[in-house]
Amino acid sequence: MRGTVLYAPRDIRFEDLPDPELAEATDAIVRVVATCVCGSDLWRYRGITPVPEPRPIGHEYVGIVEEVGGDVTTVRPGQFVIGSFLASDNTCPHCRYGYQSSCRQGEFVNGCQAEYVRVPLADGTLVTVPGRPDESLTPSLLALSDVMGTGWYAAVAAEVRPGSTVAVVGDGAVGLSGVLAARELGAERIIAMSRHESRQKLALEFGATDIVTERGEEGVARIAELTDGVGADAVLECVGTSESMSQALRCTRPGGNVGFVGVPHGAELPTRELFDSHIGVRGGSAPVRRFLPDLIDRVLDGRIEPGKVFDLVLPLDQVAEAYRAMDERRAIKALLWP
Amino acid sequence: MRGTVLYAPRDIRFEDLPDPELAEATDAIVRVVATCVCGSDLWRYRGITPVPEPRPIGHEYVGIVEEVGGDVTTVRPGQFVIGSFLASDNTCPHCRYGYQSSCRQGEFVNGCQAEYVRVPLADGTLVTVPGRPDESLTPSLLALSDVMGTGWYAAVAAEVRPGSTVAVVGDGAVGLSGVLAARELGAERIIAMSRHESRQKLALEFGATDIVTERGEEGVARIAELTDGVGADAVLECVGTSESMSQALRCTRPGGNVGFVGVPHGAELPTRELFDSHIGVRGGSAPVRRFLPDLIDRVLDGRIEPGKVFDLVLPLDQVAEAYRAMDERRAIKALLWP
Repeated sequence: MRGTVLYAPRDIRFEDLPDPELAEATDAIVRVVATCVCGSDLWRYRGITPVPEPRPIGHEYVGIVEEVGGDVTTVRPGQFVIGSFLASDNTCPHCRYGYQSSCRQGEFVNGCQAEYVRVPLADGTLVTVPGRPDESLTPSLLALSDVMGTGWYAAVAAEVRPGSTVAVVGDGAVGLSGVLAARELGAERIIAMSRHESRQKLALEFGATDIVTERGEEGVARIAELTDGVGADAVLECVGTSESMSQALRCTRPGGNVGFVGVPHGAELPTRELFDSHIGVRGGSAPVRRFLPDLIDRVLDGRIEPGKVFDLVLPLDQVAEAYRAMDERRAIKALLWP
Repeated sequence: MRGTVLYAPRDIRFEDLPDPELAEATDAIVRVVATCVCGSDLWRYRGITPVPEPRPIGHEYVGIVEEVGGDVTTVRPGQFVIGSFLASDNTCPHCRYGYQSSCRQGEFVNGCQAEYVRVPLADGTLVTVPGRPDESLTPSLLALSDVMGTGWYAAVAAEVRPGSTVAVVGDGAVGLSGVLAARELGAERIIAMSRHESRQKLALEFGATDIVTERGEEGVARIAELTDGVGADAVLECVGTSESMSQALRCTRPGGNVGFVGVPHGAELPTRELFDSHIGVRGGSAPVRRFLPDLIDRVLDGRIEPGKVFDLVLPLDQVAEAYRAMDERRAIKALLWP
């Protein structure tokens, strides 16, 4: 098959690779119908996360089950499936509590920017979509694999409730998905922090009621102004830097909540400030598996269209251009068709 | 009147002081019926928190309203009242969200280890107890002023629910009150971490189902063993040191919650570990005012007897001995009768 390998920072190649094979009896091989590039792939692409040796890349996928191991009972060849970037057995205590991204057997799914991918723990990881969904739904179903599931978790971790005032820090695909999640969870007011016109537009389409272009002190002041000096009930931190976390905490009202899903790259939680502000925080890699059945229903019903985050669509063999476009912020998120 | 002044570390004096007077029209003067020494008073007593100049001390009280300012409408002279250590208007947005300890007008109540005390924002701060409660209930009502309200908040912040497995780090009066709170909130299993026999005994009386005497690595291993390797759903951090916070976080299951009420003295919240573990945290000075009406009911109904944390009772003029006994851990908590 052909697939994507990151050789070194900014050296992405699409090349011949061995076909993936069943390694465990609990594996499935999935033929990738669509995949995409994640903001978190850029940490490696930019060399911020080291790339010690060439390795296949990509962790978002929808596809058709091609083959399953002998112990797999809930998915069958021919089914259309979605899985998250973290394989999970969905039966261990942590999974049963809804934290499948802390699964005791959990492992990362990798190498999805390819024609085929091996998915471990197929019974626990893969969720089937009934029948063969219309191709127009594929982008939205693909978005559930990571960004929409992650934005949803950010909103849940920030305890967004009907009537909440929400602020979203970060206007990447996850932040925008967080706006959509907040709307679906009944937020009354959703303040998107964004400086980019195309992202502002999508934020408004996803349910943002206000756009704040200011950052730092001015951003904090603007949110205070919009909330009668109170602060937001729930803030979604979707970046992971020191600045974005500080922004998030300072926009939250005393006793409010921050959900942080940006992989921490400098972000810090200052204990004394959290003590003094009573702000609750919860973060982490999203337990996407928990939300998949519900999110699939919402996509199939047409209630949400998270696939709109894809503003660049390319054939998979142009994956290098997809990375360049996202790196240069020419694209929010690139979808790739094998 | 006579009252307590901390002159310098370990220099506590009970002496003649001017009678407190109404300073604002929203103040009340309360004749103190009972007061006590707080674990947090010991930070100053020990010189860990600096004592730049002599000042009156004490922030826990029950008493009879002696006099009220012209704007006070909800409490009248002669009523038996309880207030928390933080005065609050109970009407600002933060108060209405239940975070009275972040009240916009909030200020500390101080100088309560005395015959009389001035309580600011009396309408918002003071909660009346119907009639004249039996003297046998005074210790339990006094405990609501801080330790029981704080233990309750720790349990609420840690999201203790019916059926929860709870661990409590810290066997001081707050930790023990946290055990009692967890029981009242329906916890199924309550693991108290304590090395002191008298405190273990009270923990068991308050509802602890297990006692863990180990600390550090061994303490973590013991909690893991008691929870089938899963960890506790909810952990109450009632100390505030680096060791106790680390202990708390490492005893919590992925996706569980830590409520931290020990004033941070070295405690740190490691961002990456919180991200990886999905643990939710919330802390702070307890919004005791939120819980007072409910807790008063529980005391009057005989459902809880938090006054049992007082294992030393002295006349107020022996306040210096009360500090010494708590400093030397000869007493859990000392009640003082003026």
